[in-house]
Amino acid sequence: MSENRLFGVIIAGGRGTRFWPLSRKARPKHLLNFLGETTLLRQTAERVLPLTGAGRLFVVTAESQADEVGKILTDIPPQNILAEPAGKNTAPAIALAAAHIIDEDPNGIMIVLPSDHIIEPRDKFMADVEEAARLADTRRALAIFGIRPTRPETGYGYIEVGQKLDGHAFGVASFKEKPNLKKAKDYLATGRYLWNSGMFVFRADVYMEKVRRHMPKLFTAWERYAKGNRGAEDLNEYYAVAEAISIDHGIMEKLEGEAAVIAAGFNWSDIGSWDATDDLWAADEKGNRARGGDLFPMAAEGNTVVSKKLVALLGVENLIVVETDDAILITKKEKAQEIKNLVQEMERRGLHRYL
Amino acid sequence: MSENRLFGVIIAGGRGTRFWPLSRKARPKHLLNFLGETTLLRQTAERVLPLTGAGRLFVVTAESQADEVGKILTDIPPQNILAEPAGKNTAPAIALAAAHIIDEDPNGIMIVLPSDHIIEPRDKFMADVEEAARLADTRRALAIFGIRPTRPETGYGYIEVGQKLDGHAFGVASFKEKPNLKKAKDYLATGRYLWNSGMFVFRADVYMEKVRRHMPKLFTAWERYAKGNRGAEDLNEYYAVAEAISIDHGIMEKLEGEAAVIAAGFNWSDIGSWDATDDLWAADEKGNRARGGDLFPMAAEGNTVVSKKLVALLGVENLIVVETDDAILITKKEKAQEIKNLVQEMERRGLHRYL
Repeated sequence: MSENRLFGVIIAGGRGTRFWPLSRKARPKHLLNFLGETTLLRQTAERVLPLTGAGRLFVVTAESQADEVGKILTDIPPQNILAEPAGKNTAPAIALAAAHIIDEDPNGIMIVLPSDHIIEPRDKFMADVEEAARLADTRRALAIFGIRPTRPETGYGYIEVGQKLDGHAFGVASFKEKPNLKKAKDYLATGRYLWNSGMFVFRADVYMEKVRRHMPKLFTAWERYAKGNRGAEDLNEYYAVAEAISIDHGIMEKLEGEAAVIAAGFNWSDIGSWDATDDLWAADEKGNRARGGDLFPMAAEGNTVVSKKLVALLGVENLIVVETDDAILITKKEKAQEIKNLVQEMERRGLHRYL
Repeated sequence: MSENRLFGVIIAGGRGTRFWPLSRKARPKHLLNFLGETTLLRQTAERVLPLTGAGRLFVVTAESQADEVGKILTDIPPQNILAEPAGKNTAPAIALAAAHIIDEDPNGIMIVLPSDHIIEPRDKFMADVEEAARLADTRRALAIFGIRPTRPETGYGYIEVGQKLDGHAFGVASFKEKPNLKKAKDYLATGRYLWNSGMFVFRADVYMEKVRRHMPKLFTAWERYAKGNRGAEDLNEYYAVAEAISIDHGIMEKLEGEAAVIAAGFNWSDIGSWDATDDLWAADEKGNRARGGDLFPMAAEGNTVVSKKLVALLGVENLIVVETDDAILITKKEKAQEIKNLVQEMERRGLHRYL
């Protein structure tokens, strides 16, 4: 494309309960910098800014996080930070951004990225995005990045790859829900499945066509918002009407032949829980990892520790230990996925001040 | 005895490395109050004061701890706090106290107690001490309290019980070093062995007779100290000469027919390591125990936690977790005895500021 029609849309709505006690309601995962020099949100912005420029980068976030997002992304126009009055999952959030993008360029192409993934190297990411953008433009496809699975992960959706289109692009034979372990192993064995990364590239107008067809109620609310003066009242009304539904369930799974998957050439992690840090942080010779303070392991293996204090581990294995100013979490790595249940239970018991 | 000739001698010299990170060099176990309303030292004093009165209670402690001991035992005369310039184990420490006791009463009877044990109920303890004192006086015996074993403990010395003397008193057939597990099981099975509690009752002059016979070098140094003006220089000289040896190895094991054991009627714990708190602290229905802050266990059993923070435990079992201002320890209960090795290793690596 000779003319730049790319727009970035960062979806920064997550609560990140799986990284409790470091992540909190007011300090979700993408606002933390425990995985690099900067926050995950800033890392995500840096990844897409070379493609779009600051003026064409949007962020959809929660009202409670909008100020903090603005402090991290001082280079983008304040009006590009879209603050949701209610969390309604990704389909309405992406439509909201689409309204603003279509204003600026009716042929605009959206790069939709969660705010809290780790991707490298950046040049491969940029090349794949450009390939996806061509596909989105020439075929009017909704393109999704698929990640080659390295393990029978049960925490992700899968994409069954269909016929080859061109380059690294394929049709989508089907979308699969998060599988059980047996199914995940089957998917891995066939070699015909990719992980659903939750990252998309499509024309804004094409996305809205699909919304009109598959989520007509949302489309009606969206049209009213898009054609109105877009004040707080209009936004509240849009969010009051919008169904809370993901782009995957609301749109992608209903497409036939209009979805395309790009087999990603970059490395990707959604760092969905503490155990994912195993792939990101350097370990000592016994597989122990630490961030923050000093670790003193003795007959201890495979532990991951986040604390500003000296942490002495004696004869323990595969623990996750996270200390903050007011709380300490201790669990096993194999239980890392269940931290969200722990947080839910704490909420139910009224321990709000720790959440 | 119509006339009170009882003197208390609290041996408060321990480092308590097994309770790291709560216990430190400058804050050993007996100066902590984590096991009750008051410090273990104060609890020990309260136990013996009704028998001796404040004027006849002595404490032998390290120079570095003398100020803190004085703050805890404000009711005893300051000159009764004997500060050792060097740690030389119990035989020299008890002899030091004996010098001061013989001054006050040549027929004085010493009740020698470690500063950091838990004993209850107090009335049974007092009755046993009085029985031991009669034995010590009438038979000129060195009496030791033996504890009926409840498990094949390998961390204590054992006393083989000999012929019955009277009441709960028996001759000592032999003293046994800390056994291995097989031996400990044998001792337990025979029913003829008691745990060595490290608590003694004897006449001060009788103890010094035994020192003269079995530790003549110490006796010579002691005589010089006892007959001198007992200034700092004299004390330093005594400790420079004194061999570092326990009363058990230096004296008790060498006695033949002069040692007696009282089978204690009281409950006793030397709370030698964190796992001993299992017998002292109330647990929730899953066997989790906490001191300090809130505990939030989920699928967690048998853990013991000391922290001022909220500690969330997810799917972990039989852990000991101790948090202080600058350090966190995490280990398994079965490794509690090895914390002293951990502390030694930290010392070797130069981590003095945590010790």
